[in-house]
Amino acid sequence: MVGAEKAIFEGAASFEPERPDVYGSAHPKGLLRAVQEEHEYLLTLSKNHVASAAQFERPLLTQLFRLAAKYEANPDRFATPMKPLSGKLLISAFYEPSTRTRLSFESAWHRLGGDIMSITDRSTTGIAKGESLSDVAEMFNNYGDCVVLRDNAESSVMEMMGALRIPIINAGNGMDEHPTQALADLYAIMKWRPDLLAEEPENKIRIGIVGVPNRMRTVRSLLTLLSRFSNSFEEVVVIHDDKNGDVWAPEQKENLLREGLNIRESDDLDKELPELDVVYINAIAWVADGFEVMGKNLKLDKDSPLKKDSIILHPLARGDELCTSLDDTAHNWYFAQARGAVFMRMALLTCIVQRTEMVMDVV
Amino acid sequence: MVGAEKAIFEGAASFEPERPDVYGSAHPKGLLRAVQEEHEYLLTLSKNHVASAAQFERPLLTQLFRLAAKYEANPDRFATPMKPLSGKLLISAFYEPSTRTRLSFESAWHRLGGDIMSITDRSTTGIAKGESLSDVAEMFNNYGDCVVLRDNAESSVMEMMGALRIPIINAGNGMDEHPTQALADLYAIMKWRPDLLAEEPENKIRIGIVGVPNRMRTVRSLLTLLSRFSNSFEEVVVIHDDKNGDVWAPEQKENLLREGLNIRESDDLDKELPELDVVYINAIAWVADGFEVMGKNLKLDKDSPLKKDSIILHPLARGDELCTSLDDTAHNWYFAQARGAVFMRMALLTCIVQRTEMVMDVV
Amino acid sequence: MVGAEKAIFEGAASFEPERPDVYGSAHPKGLLRAVQEEHEYLLTLSKNHVASAAQFERPLLTQLFRLAAKYEANPDRFATPMKPLSGKLLISAFYEPSTRTRLSFESAWHRLGGDIMSITDRSTTGIAKGESLSDVAEMFNNYGDCVVLRDNAESSVMEMMGALRIPIINAGNGMDEHPTQALADLYAIMKWRPDLLAEEPENKIRIGIVGVPNRMRTVRSLLTLLSRFSNSFEEVVVIHDDKNGDVWAPEQKENLLREGLNIRESDDLDKELPELDVVYINAIAWVADGFEVMGKNLKLDKDSPLKKDSIILHPLARGDELCTSLDDTAHNWYFAQARGAVFMRMALLTCIVQRTEMVMDVV
Repeated sequence: MVGAEKAIFEGAASFEPERPDVYGSAHPKGLLRAVQEEHEYLLTLSKNHVASAAQFERPLLTQLFRLAAKYEANPDRFATPMKPLSGKLLISAFYEPSTRTRLSFESAWHRLGGDIMSITDRSTTGIAKGESLSDVAEMFNNYGDCVVLRDNAESSVMEMMGALRIPIINAGNGMDEHPTQALADLYAIMKWRPDLLAEEPENKIRIGIVGVPNRMRTVRSLLTLLSRFSNSFEEVVVIHDDKNGDVWAPEQKENLLREGLNIRESDDLDKELPELDVVYINAIAWVADGFEVMGKNLKLDKDSPLKKDSIILHPLARGDELCTSLDDTAHNWYFAQARGAVFMRMALLTCIVQRTEMVMDVV
Repeated sequence: MVGAEKAIFEGAASFEPERPDVYGSAHPKGLLRAVQEEHEYLLTLSKNHVASAAQFERPLLTQLFRLAAKYEANPDRFATPMKPLSGKLLISAFYEPSTRTRLSFESAWHRLGGDIMSITDRSTTGIAKGESLSDVAEMFNNYGDCVVLRDNAESSVMEMMGALRIPIINAGNGMDEHPTQALADLYAIMKWRPDLLAEEPENKIRIGIVGVPNRMRTVRSLLTLLSRFSNSFEEVVVIHDDKNGDVWAPEQKENLLREGLNIRESDDLDKELPELDVVYINAIAWVADGFEVMGKNLKLDKDSPLKKDSIILHPLARGDELCTSLDDTAHNWYFAQARGAVFMRMALLTCIVQRTEMVMDVV
Repeated sequence: MVGAEKAIFEGAASFEPERPDVYGSAHPKGLLRAVQEEHEYLLTLSKNHVASAAQFERPLLTQLFRLAAKYEANPDRFATPMKPLSGKLLISAFYEPSTRTRLSFESAWHRLGGDIMSITDRSTTGIAKGESLSDVAEMFNNYGDCVVLRDNAESSVMEMMGALRIPIINAGNGMDEHPTQALADLYAIMKWRPDLLAEEPENKIRIGIVGVPNRMRTVRSLLTLLSRFSNSFEEVVVIHDDKNGDVWAPEQKENLLREGLNIRESDDLDKELPELDVVYINAIAWVADGFEVMGKNLKLDKDSPLKKDSIILHPLARGDELCTSLDDTAHNWYFAQARGAVFMRMALLTCIVQRTEMVMDVV
C-alpha cells in the first residue's frame, strides 16, 4: 500500500473533534462574570476606522473583551437565525500576502452572516494601472460596508482613510501596527486571568515580550494596549538581541512609561523566564517584502526554564523560535490565542458596522 | 509618534459616512418619475447572453434604467428579507485582471442575495492545460447560473456563448466591447437629465467623447447606446489626436449615422469644452496586455474651459487625464457614475437570471 | 461589423437552457428506485476525513449514490428554505491549481447553503514562510467546519489529517488519489445502469480504463471503488502503452484481485472497444508540476469501433484523446459525469459535516 490508502489503513481517517485539555482551557465564562455589560462604550466605534492600537481606551477594551467572550461562550447563539452582519459586505484586501489573518477576518465575518469580496493580488488592482489609493477608496465606498486592509506599504491605510466613507480596519501596515492582533493577544491574557481587568488587581503579572518594538507591528500594538492596563502588570520585560540601537521609535517608550507601564529591557531570555507569567514571542520580523529572524538563543522549547503555570503567546506563523514540544503542555496558550482571535474580530466587526444593538442583552 | 498612531492623533480615525453634495447629487427619483414601469421589455433578456451594446434597443434600455433607479432609490428594500438572487450562483471569471469591474459585479450580485465563485487567475484554469473554451463553458453549465467574463482575448466570450446554457455577460473583451460599462454611463446621463428619455426631448445636449472608437471598448459600446437615443443629442463630438487613420472600425461610423447620431470629430478638447454638456473622458486604451495613453493635451483640470453645469464622466481607473482638482466641483459625475454602476448591474442581473417578477410593482 | 456586435447580429445572443438529449439522459430516478434509503451507513462518515477511496465500503457507496440521486432529481428542493449546510464554513484550499474541481466543490457547498473561504495561491500561505502543515491544520480548526485540499505534494493531506479536528477531503494529492472523482465516476455508471447495484447483477458489464494505475490518481481511486462492486463487472481491462514496468504500485493489483475484480491489461484500445460497455479515458497524467500525455493511438473519435450503447467517461479536462465529434453522440456520458459530480459532492459534504438528518426521508 502507498499514499492515502496506507494512511487510512493505519487509522488516520478518524479524528477527534474535541480540543486537547491543555489548549488554553479556561472558558470565557470567567471573563463574562468579571465584567458587566456597558453598551455605550462600544458605540464609540461608530463612524471610526481602526488603524492604531492607540484608539482603544480601557473601558472600550473591557467591553470588547466581554463581547468577544460572549461570542466565544455561545458560538451557535449568534449564528442563526439572527445574524448581526446579515446584508453587510466586506472588502477583504490583502495586498501583502496572508492566509492566517485573512481567514481569521473572513471566518469572523461569515460566522456573523455577512458576505465577502476578496482581493488577494495587488497586481489585479487599479494600483497596478497607476490609480491613486484615494480613488480606490472612493470605489470601495460604493461596493462594500467595511474594508480590511493589509499592505507592506505602511502608508496605504492612511491614504485610504482620508477618502473612505465606510470603516477600514488595519490588518497590518508594513512594520507599523497590527491593532486587531494586539486585541486578540490581550483578550487571551484577560481570559486566562480576568482578575486583571479589575481597577486594582491584587496579583499583578510579569510579562516578557520577545521582539523589537520599533520593527515588529505586533509588538508595537501590543505594548500600547498593555499600557491601558498598566496597573495589571508588575513589569514588562522587552527581550531582544538588537545591537543597532533601533529598538524604539522616537517617544514610543516615553509614551508607554507615561501611561504607567514599568518597562525593562533584557537580552537573556532564559534568565528572565523563571519570573515571567506570560511569555510573548514573535521572532519573525517583517521587513519590506522579506523577513528577518531573531537570534538563535531567543527560543522556547521543553528545556526552557518556564515558570510553573506561565503561558506562552505567539501571533503565529511560527518557526524554530517556538518548539512544537511545548504544544502538549499547559503553557500552550498560543492555540487558544488564535482561536479567540476569531471571536475578538467578531466583536470588533459587530461594533464597527453598527450592529451592536443586535447582540446586547439590554439596549 | 509615527505611523497609524500619528494619523489617529491627528484626527484621522473618524469618517463621515455621507457623500459630499457635489458627488452627482441628483436623486434617481427624477428618472423614476419620468418613466412608467413596463415589465415586458425586461423579459426579452430571458435566455439571452449580454455580449454587445448592440443588443439593447431603446425601450429595453429605458426600462433597465428605471429598474436601476428603483434599486438606487431604495437600496435597503431589496436587500432583506426578499432577495431576488437568493439561491443563484455567479461564476465571476476575470481572466484579464480587474478589481473595479469585478467588485462592481460581485457587489451587485451579493446585494441581491446571491452567491459567487471567483476565478481571478487564468493560469489556474484548464485553459492552461489546453482545455477548449467550449469545454470550459460546458463545465460552467453545471456549476453556476450566470457567468461574468473579462478577457484580453477578444474572442473568448464568443467561443463560450456557443456552448453555454446559462447566460454570460461580457465584462470587457479585448478592445471590442464593454456593454455594462456603457449601460452605467448612459444611466448616469439619464439620471442627470431624465427629460432626455422623452420621445422628443426639448433641450437636447451636446456630448464630447475623448477617445478612439476603434480601440477603446468603452467608447465603442457607449456610442452604440447613444445611437438608440439619437434624438436626445444635438451632436456627438469625438475628440482624439490619432493620426494613424485607425479611428473607426469598418462601418462603425456609418451604422451610428444611420441610427441618427450626429457625429463630428475634433482634435482640440479645449476648443470644444465650452459647448459640451457632457464630457466623457477615457484616455487609457487597453492594447493587448498593456495600455497606451492619449496625448498630453487631452486632459481635464480646473483650468479647462468647462461649460457651466456640464458634467464629466470617466469609466475609471483614471490617470493624469482627469485632475483630482475637479473632484470637489459640481462637474464631478464620475463618482456618481461608479456608484450608479452597481445598481445598473443589479438591474441587468435580475433580468438575466429571470427574477424580474420579484421586483416589479405590478406583474 | 466586428467582434461581439457581429456575433450578436449572427444570432449568438440567445441560448437554449435545456441540455441536448444525448448528454447522458438517464434520469437519476432509476437509481432512486433501485435503492432503499438506509440512513445509518451515512453516519459512518461522521468524524472521518476523506483521504482515500479505500475508506468506502459497498453499503456506504450505495447510500451515497442514492443521496446524490435524490439531490440530482430534486435540485430545488434542498436549495430553499431548508439549507443543509447553512452556517457551515468551507476552507477551499487549492495549492495545486484547478478550476474544475474547485468550482465543483464550491458549487456543491453553495447549493446547500454554506459559506466558503478560498485559498488559490500557495505563496500567500504561511507555508511560504516556513510554517508546518500541522500548524496550518490547527489554524483551520479555528476558522472553518470542513477543508477541501488539492496539492501536488502527495503527503500534505496526511500531514494535515494528524492535527485537524474538522474533516478534510482530499481533492487530489499528487499522483496518489482523487477519491471524490472516483465517487463521481462510479455514480455516473450506476445512474446509467442501476441494476448493477444489485447483489447479483444479471447483466454484468465490461469496463475499459485507459490509463496507468500507478501514475494517475483518478485511475487508482476508481479501481478501488470498482472492486467494491466486483460482481458487477465481467472484466476490467486496463489499457495503456507503458513499457517501463511502472504500471502498478506494490500490491495494488493483488488487493484488487483479492476483492474479486477480474483484471486484464491490453495495449490496443481499438481491439478492445467493440466489447467494452464503459470506456474510461484519462490520457493526461499529472507528474509533479507538469503532465505527461499518453501515446497517440490511445484516442477516441468518431471512427473508433465503439460498442453500440456503450458510454464514455472522462474526468476532464480533456485534450486530443477524446475528440469533440463524440460530444453529440449517445456515447457522451462525460458531460453527465461532470454534472453528476456536483450532486455526488453535495451528498458527501452533507454527511461529512453531519447534516444527514436534514435530508433523510425517515430519521
